[in-house]
Amino acid sequence: MKLSRRNALLAGATGLAAAPLLAASAAAQANPARTMRDGESAPPGVAGRDYRPVITPDGAALPYRIQGGVKIFHLVAEEVEHEFAPGLVGRCWGYNGRVHGPTIEAVEGDRLRIYVTNRLPAPTTVHWHGLVVPSGMDGVGGISQPSIRPGETFVYEWTLRQHGTFMYHSHHDEMTQMALGLMGLFIAHPRRPQGPRADRDYAYLLSEWQMHPGASRPDPNAMEFNLLTFNARAYPGTSPMLARTGERVRIRLANLSAMDHHPIHIHGHVMTVTETDGGPIPQSARWPETTVLVPTGSSRTVEFIADNPGDWAFHCHMTHHVMNQMGHGIPNMTGVNARRIDRAVGAILPHYMTMGHDGMGDMGPHVESGHMPVPGNSLPMVGAQGPHGYVTMGGMVTLLKVRNRLPADGSHPGWYDDPPGTRARIARAEELTRDGVDPAAPPRP
Amino acid sequence: MKLSRRNALLAGATGLAAAPLLAASAAAQANPARTMRDGESAPPGVAGRDYRPVITPDGAALPYRIQGGVKIFHLVAEEVEHEFAPGLVGRCWGYNGRVHGPTIEAVEGDRLRIYVTNRLPAPTTVHWHGLVVPSGMDGVGGISQPSIRPGETFVYEWTLRQHGTFMYHSHHDEMTQMALGLMGLFIAHPRRPQGPRADRDYAYLLSEWQMHPGASRPDPNAMEFNLLTFNARAYPGTSPMLARTGERVRIRLANLSAMDHHPIHIHGHVMTVTETDGGPIPQSARWPETTVLVPTGSSRTVEFIADNPGDWAFHCHMTHHVMNQMGHGIPNMTGVNARRIDRAVGAILPHYMTMGHDGMGDMGPHVESGHMPVPGNSLPMVGAQGPHGYVTMGGMVTLLKVRNRLPADGSHPGWYDDPPGTRARIARAEELTRDGVDPAAPPRP
Amino acid sequence: MKLSRRNALLAGATGLAAAPLLAASAAAQANPARTMRDGESAPPGVAGRDYRPVITPDGAALPYRIQGGVKIFHLVAEEVEHEFAPGLVGRCWGYNGRVHGPTIEAVEGDRLRIYVTNRLPAPTTVHWHGLVVPSGMDGVGGISQPSIRPGETFVYEWTLRQHGTFMYHSHHDEMTQMALGLMGLFIAHPRRPQGPRADRDYAYLLSEWQMHPGASRPDPNAMEFNLLTFNARAYPGTSPMLARTGERVRIRLANLSAMDHHPIHIHGHVMTVTETDGGPIPQSARWPETTVLVPTGSSRTVEFIADNPGDWAFHCHMTHHVMNQMGHGIPNMTGVNARRIDRAVGAILPHYMTMGHDGMGDMGPHVESGHMPVPGNSLPMVGAQGPHGYVTMGGMVTLLKVRNRLPADGSHPGWYDDPPGTRARIARAEELTRDGVDPAAPPRP
Repeated sequence: MKLSRRNALLAGATGLAAAPLLAASAAAQANPARTMRDGESAPPGVAGRDYRPVITPDGAALPYRIQGGVKIFHLVAEEVEHEFAPGLVGRCWGYNGRVHGPTIEAVEGDRLRIYVTNRLPAPTTVHWHGLVVPSGMDGVGGISQPSIRPGETFVYEWTLRQHGTFMYHSHHDEMTQMALGLMGLFIAHPRRPQGPRADRDYAYLLSEWQMHPGASRPDPNAMEFNLLTFNARAYPGTSPMLARTGERVRIRLANLSAMDHHPIHIHGHVMTVTETDGGPIPQSARWPETTVLVPTGSSRTVEFIADNPGDWAFHCHMTHHVMNQMGHGIPNMTGVNARRIDRAVGAILPHYMTMGHDGMGDMGPHVESGHMPVPGNSLPMVGAQGPHGYVTMGGMVTLLKVRNRLPADGSHPGWYDDPPGTRARIARAEELTRDGVDPAAPPRP
Repeated sequence: MKLSRRNALLAGATGLAAAPLLAASAAAQANPARTMRDGESAPPGVAGRDYRPVITPDGAALPYRIQGGVKIFHLVAEEVEHEFAPGLVGRCWGYNGRVHGPTIEAVEGDRLRIYVTNRLPAPTTVHWHGLVVPSGMDGVGGISQPSIRPGETFVYEWTLRQHGTFMYHSHHDEMTQMALGLMGLFIAHPRRPQGPRADRDYAYLLSEWQMHPGASRPDPNAMEFNLLTFNARAYPGTSPMLARTGERVRIRLANLSAMDHHPIHIHGHVMTVTETDGGPIPQSARWPETTVLVPTGSSRTVEFIADNPGDWAFHCHMTHHVMNQMGHGIPNMTGVNARRIDRAVGAILPHYMTMGHDGMGDMGPHVESGHMPVPGNSLPMVGAQGPHGYVTMGGMVTLLKVRNRLPADGSHPGWYDDPPGTRARIARAEELTRDGVDPAAPPRP
Repeated sequence: MKLSRRNALLAGATGLAAAPLLAASAAAQANPARTMRDGESAPPGVAGRDYRPVITPDGAALPYRIQGGVKIFHLVAEEVEHEFAPGLVGRCWGYNGRVHGPTIEAVEGDRLRIYVTNRLPAPTTVHWHGLVVPSGMDGVGGISQPSIRPGETFVYEWTLRQHGTFMYHSHHDEMTQMALGLMGLFIAHPRRPQGPRADRDYAYLLSEWQMHPGASRPDPNAMEFNLLTFNARAYPGTSPMLARTGERVRIRLANLSAMDHHPIHIHGHVMTVTETDGGPIPQSARWPETTVLVPTGSSRTVEFIADNPGDWAFHCHMTHHVMNQMGHGIPNMTGVNARRIDRAVGAILPHYMTMGHDGMGDMGPHVESGHMPVPGNSLPMVGAQGPHGYVTMGGMVTLLKVRNRLPADGSHPGWYDDPPGTRARIARAEELTRDGVDPAAPPRP
């Protein structure tokens, strides 16, 4: 066996407790197998690491070991009980006990060997999306290789010649298998990084699901979706991003949604788009955005300076994508199904809502208070309690918390406390008078 | 009271007839409160104005006054009866009696104070989309601030540090509230404009609605849409854009549609994309387009020289978005609902149309002539009478009228009269003979 | 008659057998009327040609003749029986016996005269999408011209002042007429080409259809689609692209789908986006991509060096767009219609599939073997037999075949034979041991 001490130190392998030839406990300490949280900029105790790991909020990095100069990974496709948000668990297909699969990280020039074990009831493959590999390593079932049958372990091997943000996913019966969760991020770090170094480097995989309320199995035949996720988590189940004021933040957004191109909007900042899954965008070609469109099957990397302290929403701007399950397809009046247009023609619609006479904003609190019943295993349409009342958002939403100082232990800071005079507030009567504003007689342009 | 004569001249405030401390009649003359039309490049009589206003076709500018060096605006969220096009009125939610809300215009460096009164039956907020504001002014209900309850007036205040095309919209129960119309444009003019000056500067807000035929209330739960609008107007209800030959035209396209990224196509010209809601695109990074994709939650500014006289269609290129209400979801044969696929499987479909044996093109005239009944308060599927027959378009469509000279009174010129030899026409028999064209024996490549 | 011998040689006209004044047989040989295949880089025997034709896989070029210095084309709109893939024929509307219409090719500076005969039962027009033409030649029914009535032949004429990838399509009742197929590619070659010359120049028109299983008429009212095509062909009915290793490949992607912006993904290569239908993108502004989003109503031209031998998938990345008809809208369990959410609420869903207990991957072979009945005139959901088993893809999918050498006769090479050691394969027991991989105890990050 060729595993040198140096290799063991480099490996960062973990969870290989049963691996026959590796001193697992040391390795497990070297790269503990758990969800990365902000502040863990690199797994502790790993000497000689040649890259700065990304943070996959609510995700994890796939451990590896180095053997004979080759970086060795082991993916296992299997059924996974996955919590999308507190209260909603799905029976999905993932890798290594996770949905989505753990993030693979490697460095330009690395020789990679990736074992894939199929513990699913159906054949599968893995495609390395955006990565230039030999034809036979491309993972397209039937064309590149026979699909991996249940119980089999396949091996993929190639030399990494790119850097950037890529993905891996099933490329066999992909409509079904990707809808159930078989995907993950693949980060290729540059051997010689160029340009300014990111102080925070976040990575997200965007996906979408149809979870019929009360069901536990995503519906892979659906062409409409009611559960929209960042790293397979729906708000309020998403962990926030953190940054100190003045830091350069990089966010990698990769999209493997079935159908949608998600426009991801940031509050309080302007981003520059720096990379696609085709590689870096030349400096001369970069666009500024506050909303970056991430087409499905693409990645977009954005960077910005976090110069504005606060709690900033970061979310898809499609309004149905910032709602959870029950906000969609609801009849908009009692006794008439809005989809049955034959009945609707000619009818004069009365008040348009059966649930919430004035919108959905007050539904979440009703659900939480128990005043409104919901099916088991489901989410209310909206949100969570915030510092100033109920937040009427769900789904593809997270927060960026920018602070002049962050907790030393890497934990999330509480809600932002605005300095005096910098929060919207009820206007005082004397202000209205001073400024000539009469709420009863608004300007009518 | 600190309103000086100079401030009153600068203010351009209007509609504030009941405002206690302002001499309203003079101000109303300074910036008359009505829909902007082409030719009104700036409200008349406003001295010292430091920007050239945009034109919001079928929209209006929100008046302001200047008080103590602060530009003061007053938005009032309220229910509005809004005409989308002649024949179709919706009970929407808007601002200051308009849907969408009036366009806010300000200049980089301005100190802004914006009062927001809530006259809706539900709580709301206002988010300044794309604008970098202090955290507490960001308008996300529950996170940035408590939502504004019915009857309350809130005040937002910050210094404008950007220029470009932005939006404002509700960020509380946004799926419902934006679907009902709570949005508007926010134009930030540069303090020191760079590059060539636009001779015409148009601004559009794109949105989409589900108005069940015969209903008057938009359906906020819908994920499909049958009413597509430029500045909340559907063709043939959209006012045209005007330009003189040789003028530089800027068009600002901001999209707050619930779900769709609209590809906006221009006829007769090639546009350059110059800005996003993140700011100006560097000259080196600009793309030429005849169709610019405007992702929802984004803005795209385009510029071009209007060098081609004529009446040019300007429209979304999604074919269902250039139809009005009744063109969607119609069963495609008598007695069989196309959506109930269980019945359709195995059936051999006969002729595919119940309405219009050869398409929808002849439906509009049938409706207009009274030969085909439609529900009250609804639009025929298509279009309007044009100079050469019925125009089979509706929805997200307008016209750009380019002329060597325009009416001096700012009114719309009539239809374009093509010079001899520049219009498609019936071929003459001798041409067919000369050119070897036999309609009965076409080339069969 | 002014048809000189030189003109006849230049013409490349064909299919004009009944054209009264042209020696049709010679012309037909000069530019034979048939589907272009790779290797036919130019129609044989055409002297004086001033451009290198594109290849429209599964399509054809529209013949032309030159008369008095004018390039003369003849389009005939008519009903066409079109095969989307073996087993699925649609009654569509096309041009000159084809769906989509033949590709028009011309050169910057050409004077063009295009006759359009309407053999449809409905009025129509032709719009030259992206091309700057005089107002009256723009083809918008009712605005630019009266629509062309059944039996009429219209004539369009203008001078081509652009180069790039454009389209033509009906602009009268476009929702219906484009849904039935009335569209084609228009390639404008530069008079003085700049930059590196493409060794292979492919052109695709993307479109989408709703063909209810068993039906033969596309449904023009549909807003969802179950048949996704490259040049009106669905995989496995799409011909592959070919390239020799080291060649520069250009692919022109134009999209006239009703509703969707297609993200087209390439395997094994990184592409650069070089043009839109607005013209060339400046070198400084170009983005690298492995997935290029082609908004509907747009074209995107990409280029890359084919430096990676193999059989590479080239496809839309929306997962429902790589399935054929039957993969959509299927109830996901017996007896419960997933669309009738009123019934679904509160139900605990059992196993989620009525068709295929573990996905769709095994449905295709079942259909092909006759074990599963399908309606007449329909496609199984998936795919085709590949070199390594069944390929579970359909729809908007084709292949790029890169080889060190290609068959001399222009025919398609067989499946790629990977060199030893470059294909994913079952791992051997000793490898698992050597590399410390235990399939029974995977890493659990």
